[in-house]
Amino acid sequence: MRPSGRAPDEMRAITIETGFTSHAEGSCLVSFGETRVLCNASIEERIPPWMRGKGEGWVTAEYSMLPRSTHTRGMREAVKGKQGGRTQEIQRLIGRSLRAVVDLKKLGERQITLDCDVLQADGGTRTASISGAWVALRLAVDGLMKQGVLKEDPITARIAAVSCGIYNGTPVLDLDYPEDSNAEADANFVLIEGGKIAESQVTAEGAPFDEEGLLRLLRLARMGCDRIFAAQEEAVRK
Amino acid sequence: MRPSGRAPDEMRAITIETGFTSHAEGSCLVSFGETRVLCNASIEERIPPWMRGKGEGWVTAEYSMLPRSTHTRGMREAVKGKQGGRTQEIQRLIGRSLRAVVDLKKLGERQITLDCDVLQADGGTRTASISGAWVALRLAVDGLMKQGVLKEDPITARIAAVSCGIYNGTPVLDLDYPEDSNAEADANFVLIEGGKIAESQVTAEGAPFDEEGLLRLLRLARMGCDRIFAAQEEAVRK
Amino acid sequence: MRPSGRAPDEMRAITIETGFTSHAEGSCLVSFGETRVLCNASIEERIPPWMRGKGEGWVTAEYSMLPRSTHTRGMREAVKGKQGGRTQEIQRLIGRSLRAVVDLKKLGERQITLDCDVLQADGGTRTASISGAWVALRLAVDGLMKQGVLKEDPITARIAAVSCGIYNGTPVLDLDYPEDSNAEADANFVLIEGGKIAESQVTAEGAPFDEEGLLRLLRLARMGCDRIFAAQEEAVRK
Amino acid sequence: MRPSGRAPDEMRAITIETGFTSHAEGSCLVSFGETRVLCNASIEERIPPWMRGKGEGWVTAEYSMLPRSTHTRGMREAVKGKQGGRTQEIQRLIGRSLRAVVDLKKLGERQITLDCDVLQADGGTRTASISGAWVALRLAVDGLMKQGVLKEDPITARIAAVSCGIYNGTPVLDLDYPEDSNAEADANFVLIEGGKIAESQVTAEGAPFDEEGLLRLLRLARMGCDRIFAAQEEAVRK
Amino acid sequence: MRPSGRAPDEMRAITIETGFTSHAEGSCLVSFGETRVLCNASIEERIPPWMRGKGEGWVTAEYSMLPRSTHTRGMREAVKGKQGGRTQEIQRLIGRSLRAVVDLKKLGERQITLDCDVLQADGGTRTASISGAWVALRLAVDGLMKQGVLKEDPITARIAAVSCGIYNGTPVLDLDYPEDSNAEADANFVLIEGGKIAESQVTAEGAPFDEEGLLRLLRLARMGCDRIFAAQEEAVRK
Amino acid sequence: MRPSGRAPDEMRAITIETGFTSHAEGSCLVSFGETRVLCNASIEERIPPWMRGKGEGWVTAEYSMLPRSTHTRGMREAVKGKQGGRTQEIQRLIGRSLRAVVDLKKLGERQITLDCDVLQADGGTRTASISGAWVALRLAVDGLMKQGVLKEDPITARIAAVSCGIYNGTPVLDLDYPEDSNAEADANFVLIEGGKIAESQVTAEGAPFDEEGLLRLLRLARMGCDRIFAAQEEAVRK
Repeated sequence: MRPSGRAPDEMRAITIETGFTSHAEGSCLVSFGETRVLCNASIEERIPPWMRGKGEGWVTAEYSMLPRSTHTRGMREAVKGKQGGRTQEIQRLIGRSLRAVVDLKKLGERQITLDCDVLQADGGTRTASISGAWVALRLAVDGLMKQGVLKEDPITARIAAVSCGIYNGTPVLDLDYPEDSNAEADANFVLIEGGKIAESQVTAEGAPFDEEGLLRLLRLARMGCDRIFAAQEEAVRK
Repeated sequence: MRPSGRAPDEMRAITIETGFTSHAEGSCLVSFGETRVLCNASIEERIPPWMRGKGEGWVTAEYSMLPRSTHTRGMREAVKGKQGGRTQEIQRLIGRSLRAVVDLKKLGERQITLDCDVLQADGGTRTASISGAWVALRLAVDGLMKQGVLKEDPITARIAAVSCGIYNGTPVLDLDYPEDSNAEADANFVLIEGGKIAESQVTAEGAPFDEEGLLRLLRLARMGCDRIFAAQEEAVRK
Repeated sequence: MRPSGRAPDEMRAITIETGFTSHAEGSCLVSFGETRVLCNASIEERIPPWMRGKGEGWVTAEYSMLPRSTHTRGMREAVKGKQGGRTQEIQRLIGRSLRAVVDLKKLGERQITLDCDVLQADGGTRTASISGAWVALRLAVDGLMKQGVLKEDPITARIAAVSCGIYNGTPVLDLDYPEDSNAEADANFVLIEGGKIAESQVTAEGAPFDEEGLLRLLRLARMGCDRIFAAQEEAVRK
Repeated sequence: MRPSGRAPDEMRAITIETGFTSHAEGSCLVSFGETRVLCNASIEERIPPWMRGKGEGWVTAEYSMLPRSTHTRGMREAVKGKQGGRTQEIQRLIGRSLRAVVDLKKLGERQITLDCDVLQADGGTRTASISGAWVALRLAVDGLMKQGVLKEDPITARIAAVSCGIYNGTPVLDLDYPEDSNAEADANFVLIEGGKIAESQVTAEGAPFDEEGLLRLLRLARMGCDRIFAAQEEAVRK
Repeated sequence: MRPSGRAPDEMRAITIETGFTSHAEGSCLVSFGETRVLCNASIEERIPPWMRGKGEGWVTAEYSMLPRSTHTRGMREAVKGKQGGRTQEIQRLIGRSLRAVVDLKKLGERQITLDCDVLQADGGTRTASISGAWVALRLAVDGLMKQGVLKEDPITARIAAVSCGIYNGTPVLDLDYPEDSNAEADANFVLIEGGKIAESQVTAEGAPFDEEGLLRLLRLARMGCDRIFAAQEEAVRK
Repeated sequence: MRPSGRAPDEMRAITIETGFTSHAEGSCLVSFGETRVLCNASIEERIPPWMRGKGEGWVTAEYSMLPRSTHTRGMREAVKGKQGGRTQEIQRLIGRSLRAVVDLKKLGERQITLDCDVLQADGGTRTASISGAWVALRLAVDGLMKQGVLKEDPITARIAAVSCGIYNGTPVLDLDYPEDSNAEADANFVLIEGGKIAESQVTAEGAPFDEEGLLRLLRLARMGCDRIFAAQEEAVRK
């Protein structure tokens, strides 16, 4: 039995509130249950030095947890003087995932930065971030197309991410914090609409897993991402 | 004429949404018009080393702007590797202001940290932070009193802050960003319910001011803070 | 009674020794009683990147206390790896104050940096810094005019600063350290010759103050700054 | 065809030279072809503060590339002033992988740090690091057992890691640098002797992959790790 | 001919003004010609963690140049966020030199920090620092002895330092900046009263030197240090 | 008697293995007994900003000790966030020493960086670094000459370094760690083939030394460097 009483293949409620802030070219507040992440897309008409002269754009991400998004207050990274290893690992994953569905040539020589700031954490902040960042990116690119800056859509597909894991011996979908901190295995899948895999990260926490376990987690992830794709579609249609 | 069409002594709409996040002992989202700041109070049963053994508590604050809370994206301080001068100046002001209405002896040997994270900025983020932080602090202390941890209320009064300035030669209340960036003088007042002043900071931006100007700004601030005290009262009563 | 035996409206002895160091374009050692600050003005024929192309110059300041300028040794900020919040707040204030009396267009595309290094501290280091920095700036600009680099004087007025506060219920002028650490309210005023106010910062330490208190402190500050203006005039005349 | 002329399921030559340095409690130089990593295990009779009082030990890792381990010289992280995101991601993976085969209770309240320093890089440095770190750990623990400090062996199994990827449409084992920088998908598997999976990380670089691709890569990884387990066994037997 | 017109074995004027600041337990402003260094000794009744429990004290030093002590303004190390290599090399040398004449057992479990802050630089700042730091240390220790905290004098001898070099083929004593920046060889000697050498550092800048050159420089250094010993004696006698 | 049983003027075994890594333009692993340093020379076709436009090149060095090169594990400088004072002092010495035998004009506008990474430490790491770095530099320059990039050899001579010291009252050559940590005086000499001195650094650790001691140490250093010059010649001839 899951602490939340959910069925093994049951996602938490997903909501995506677009336009949560007004300055960003694309903005949404994404919620996976009690996990809430503010995703803002910023367009800048310049690219990193090492990208210059290729006629291509760049998509990158930054991630942060507000100090009291968690059960006990965490020290602010700006006070520590650096971003921690976990933060860097997650923001690299978000950026890589979104670039998997963007044609950088079609984007032109500009950069889009996805800021994912966790307002409240209850497990799955990285997967909520990826899923929400796609919406913010979509809105920002829609703006460029409406203004006629872009003629062709550089976004090639929807992308979504979900966590799953083995909890008390059972593969379950969309771990919340009580599950996440006790799972035997913990997985994050980033899937592209249509079924392809952009990223698969599976880690044994307590007990190692096998091929069968890996495939069952992947199957759950497909179910979860279908739910997220639907929520993304609804959000951007508004 | 003010860009927003407001009268010189007219505040923007103030809303204070309590319980905006669930982990913090006190939480609210405060809005002064388009300026929105998330204020979270965290109680920790330890105090800074230099405070130990005095039988007193401590109240402190941290302030940050999300990278895209502003018109153009700002670099994240955790990426720069340090908090900037403006950030430090503001968080010192927030902490000092709240301590002005807390009896640290009555608080006991514990620390309350007020995290003020600006989700959206349109002028007056430091004064909105102080005003919202008081609500978060009030809620956190209420919790300690309900639990019987504290017998006596360590909060001695309400405190609120508002900006005002001289814009096109006219003293105006509660500057928004278009006014703030063009004001001849820029003031922040932190007032205690009942009329006393906790902090008065007035800076000439374009043209220096005189005694008369200082007093007119202070009078506007009193009007604004009365509006904020009412909003605070309503927020904590719920 | 003040610990020093001074009358409430009595300044400490002010001395300004120009040419204290030889490399700086303008240099003085300013003393307010036992508080001694070395103020050096450095002219550089370049401006910060964000100022370029406007045909204007820039005036900025840096502030530091030598480790043993204080009663007990403080850790060197270069060892800590960053400037503290108080340092940044003060150096921002010094720079802002001096820019209030400089016409940046007339200065041309060059930067003047005022380094204020506290050799010995006994209260009022920031106000001594502003008052001394004006002398260093004046000397540096005089040099540019003598060389014919500048045709018109970019300095529009004298500027001076003084602290005052409420000590044992009495408003007093020019706090020394024993007063500063026990004052009920602590104020710093930056005044322009002729009577205008460039900056007014008043903070309640123990007990909040009211309008009447604010005005009495301002009146003391005017008396103090008149003394400083006279000392500045005498110093640059030599 | 692979640039090196290897068959798709062909590993590079693996050598593990134990005792490469003399101060570390366990030391080896591991080579996967031209990739060479110095792995040193250091035992310290203290554990991180957050681990204290649990009666458990800790195993952690640090990773670094020498500036000229690569084709062009990279800036030293000690000069940059921080470890980069890639470094942190890799050292977290190495530590997590080794902890998957250590019973921390049996280790007792001590810490073993695995330092993996890349002397020469030609792809697969993180997987060579994990594979070599296990040998260094094994040697260090053997020492503790010989000295009688440990009665029971805290190491529960061998662990090894290998990269594989899809190169020119073909799944291939043990990518070298020319393959790694052009692969369509890039995977790192950490496997436990006997067949279980400790960690699976698969990333689409050019084109997303599917379940079938994932399984084919996993199968290659099993073949590669069997080779590494044999090399580990031989190395520690000496 | 030397730029200053001095004879090859002629020192610049040495002055040592004791009591230059009032808070430090020992303080002096030392001048070697235009080079002026403020040396402050601070006694703290605690020692570094790695020294504890040995019943010994510690003597250490910190060195810094004020930004405008030099011909062109240097960036403040607190702004850069770290002390540079030259700074660290010099402060290590100062600390090591002073420890050469202190019996740390007799000092007891306390630390004396020598802060050497260069107010004005014209060559030889490190040797002036060592020479002045000894005076500050002497005054601080005299204070401890007068208070009866120390029964036996922990200072075993006077120590002084001077630079010399080969300039235009001629060995010269006490290089000023124009000589220092053009010398073929540059030496710093730290000598103990009575003739012993605590430290000898000789560096070829343009042309390497030989044994004969080394000895001639050492002989000049002996002459210079005799002058400094006399100035130290006179300074502390007052 | 020396702990190692060596005669006072006996060097440890010197080996220089060229081509230890393959990417660097020049590479060797130098061993002085148990001390082993990897020296890599990297050529970059750019020079530091402050060198530009002079038509000259630059030679610089970086030094680091692997965390477990020592008896007990040292903290990684990239983790500390900065290079320590000892590291900076040593890498400045290495760079300065090598520049003493390079004609920067003949090198042309390019930079050669010597990375000296200590794999195992047993005293004398800085002198082994200088001696090995010369070999790496020689190999890198030989490459430039073979490619025809350089017509004239910019290297003017061989350079080598060795430590010596006074141990138990006796001057001894090439200190190993047990001697180094107990020597009364500790010297490092950098000598140019033919007999000239590039750098002489002598420090009294326990007891100060005199002229006679200095000369005896220098004489030992000459004997040691002759041995190193022979090893360098043999290494580059291969």
